[in-house]
Amino acid sequence: MALIVQKYGGSSVADAEKIKSIARRIAAARDEGNQVVVVVSAMGDTTDELINLAYQIDSCPSDRELDVLLSTGEIVSSTLLAMALKTLGYAAISLSGAQAGIRTDAAHSRARILGIDPGRVVRELEKGKIVIVAGFQGITDEMDITTLGRGGSDTTAVALAVSLGAGVCQIYTDVDGIYTADPRLVPEARSLDEMGYEEMLELATYGARVMHPRAVELGEIYKVPILVASSFTDSSGTLIHGGASMEIRNKVTGIAHDPNVAKITVVGVPDRPGIASSIFEPLAKADISVDTIVQNASIHNITDLTFTVAKSDLDRAMEVVRPIAGSINARQCASDSKLGKVSIIGTGMQNTPGYAARMFSALSEQGINIQLITTSEIRITCIIDEARVEEAVRALHKAFELEQAE
Amino acid sequence: MALIVQKYGGSSVADAEKIKSIARRIAAARDEGNQVVVVVSAMGDTTDELINLAYQIDSCPSDRELDVLLSTGEIVSSTLLAMALKTLGYAAISLSGAQAGIRTDAAHSRARILGIDPGRVVRELEKGKIVIVAGFQGITDEMDITTLGRGGSDTTAVALAVSLGAGVCQIYTDVDGIYTADPRLVPEARSLDEMGYEEMLELATYGARVMHPRAVELGEIYKVPILVASSFTDSSGTLIHGGASMEIRNKVTGIAHDPNVAKITVVGVPDRPGIASSIFEPLAKADISVDTIVQNASIHNITDLTFTVAKSDLDRAMEVVRPIAGSINARQCASDSKLGKVSIIGTGMQNTPGYAARMFSALSEQGINIQLITTSEIRITCIIDEARVEEAVRALHKAFELEQAE
Repeated sequence: MALIVQKYGGSSVADAEKIKSIARRIAAARDEGNQVVVVVSAMGDTTDELINLAYQIDSCPSDRELDVLLSTGEIVSSTLLAMALKTLGYAAISLSGAQAGIRTDAAHSRARILGIDPGRVVRELEKGKIVIVAGFQGITDEMDITTLGRGGSDTTAVALAVSLGAGVCQIYTDVDGIYTADPRLVPEARSLDEMGYEEMLELATYGARVMHPRAVELGEIYKVPILVASSFTDSSGTLIHGGASMEIRNKVTGIAHDPNVAKITVVGVPDRPGIASSIFEPLAKADISVDTIVQNASIHNITDLTFTVAKSDLDRAMEVVRPIAGSINARQCASDSKLGKVSIIGTGMQNTPGYAARMFSALSEQGINIQLITTSEIRITCIIDEARVEEAVRALHKAFELEQAE
Repeated sequence: MALIVQKYGGSSVADAEKIKSIARRIAAARDEGNQVVVVVSAMGDTTDELINLAYQIDSCPSDRELDVLLSTGEIVSSTLLAMALKTLGYAAISLSGAQAGIRTDAAHSRARILGIDPGRVVRELEKGKIVIVAGFQGITDEMDITTLGRGGSDTTAVALAVSLGAGVCQIYTDVDGIYTADPRLVPEARSLDEMGYEEMLELATYGARVMHPRAVELGEIYKVPILVASSFTDSSGTLIHGGASMEIRNKVTGIAHDPNVAKITVVGVPDRPGIASSIFEPLAKADISVDTIVQNASIHNITDLTFTVAKSDLDRAMEVVRPIAGSINARQCASDSKLGKVSIIGTGMQNTPGYAARMFSALSEQGINIQLITTSEIRITCIIDEARVEEAVRALHKAFELEQAE
């Protein structure tokens, strides 16, 4: 008997009818002879509604209390799903994160899973039950409720799959799988049958927000295959794995994009040790994520330092950076909030010449100016004018012939 | 430093504004130098809304899952109240029933508290925190969530007061205290300054639904005084206690009533051992509460057996009783669903003659016919025509001069 872990997102359990429909899918997996563990998110907009309620009372609620509050959303959907399975004649039990043994650190609102004590889940499975686990939450050694941050239910699901030795972790969502590009921009975009963990990580981090990156990392480390598929259709979805077929493939898998990029350039920075950290440490302390960082070659020990942040963080970031720029005698501190980024992603690109050139030429043929370039093992990213992002995605999708099946 | 336990019902925490207002009351108790533990119910109609959600999915939801679902309501209000206290500058922490160490049996939806492990509550109090406990819920030895039944938050509060050695358990609700009769029926009804546990128990059981009877029992057994007062006004409320002043008082304390009574009479029952149990055991198995039972003196070994049930249980009760009546050769099985009951309650009534006579004559002066009479140590109850109940309450309130202060 195989063990599978399934995860259903908030849109899949948004109301009573959807919950009943999901129950039928779970029952079908059980009928195929599997042991089934299901992780659920909160119903529809529940989490936002609870946050709104908290802010009616406290404009700056404590993380600890907010975690307890938000954790109730997933508990509600888990019990309702267990009830729905019962009406279909299946034995099911809901477990909170704490009951499922999800132990985390005490970093409220963004806790990390330290380990899983799967005893209770295993006992319920052995009794023949379908086990429904409330996602997104865990418990500290001091028995305090924590949450894992946005998208944390994905992490719950993969971590449970790892801990239980499941054959596969199935992430059911409102898209058919992972596409070669956003199908709203590129009508020819295809759903991929399979891809590597690294590729998925780059896609998830770089704009294809289908799955939580931490969940993908966890799958990669522990080698648990992850299927991303729709909870509304019967399409086969995308299997993310690290199998042999990954190694030999050598092409661009998909195009990611993100219109939400702002750039800060500190002009005329003295090029000496400690300058970078004098800028980036205060930004980190202000909880501002810095993405791409580029430092030009220095001339006469003077250089320019450019980096990108999310648009919503730009004003706060400028407040942090401006006084520092002054104190290090930088010449100027400039910003641009109308940028976006576009990336090509594929295993083994850097071992094969020509991808970067093909990307730059495809953009240049459209007259799109590249402002910054960064690369990783399996990704090449260009920062461009926000207004040209969609056009760039279409051009790149075509240039790398992604509309054709592999 | 005194320790007090306060409990606030659902109407006291119905929305963000009310929660803020309650927080100010709690802060005031803290400012007086007390350690404060607060038990809260779910906000307003939350429990009913969650039940409704469950029934949209399963017309007969499992008790275990329903308990998990309903327990989230009190968790939500406890976190919001902790947030509200924080905005006032007070250190507060919310704890679920499980975190507060409320251990129960596994009788889901009506669990009994087996004991309380107050370690966590005590530790948080010692840190100077106001501790907010989610009422109505506990946890079994198998770490399953249970609920204590309707009104269970009262029981949580008194049990915590017992376990922590609190000087008083304050139950804040939407009434000013315990009245000599329902003030909607008797405008002259007064709020009592104090009363005994037994008197409160009779009042609570016999129609004055201000407090959960189990909570009063617990207070009595462990000698914890219980103050019932309004969360919306500053009236002093009613102190329920077992102090010396109780012993010497010797009069009627209040009038209770209940319009929801149905009567079943099994006519011509052979008067032999085992007949009563042959009727009442099947009723108990069908989960039907039987209240008053009266058996007339038998003539030629034939008697009539009369008992009352809640109106809502009458049809089910008749279905149980009719075949039994046939099998024991009873002559007839009759019912009346248009009854109510009215009771006078007061410590030591049975040691003092004249109360019963005064009650019967007050009813007879109004031309109200008495169908059944039952008594306890501190209560005399008459079953009468439902249509005359309100009139009876007013007549008795007057006959026993309850409008005059003690």
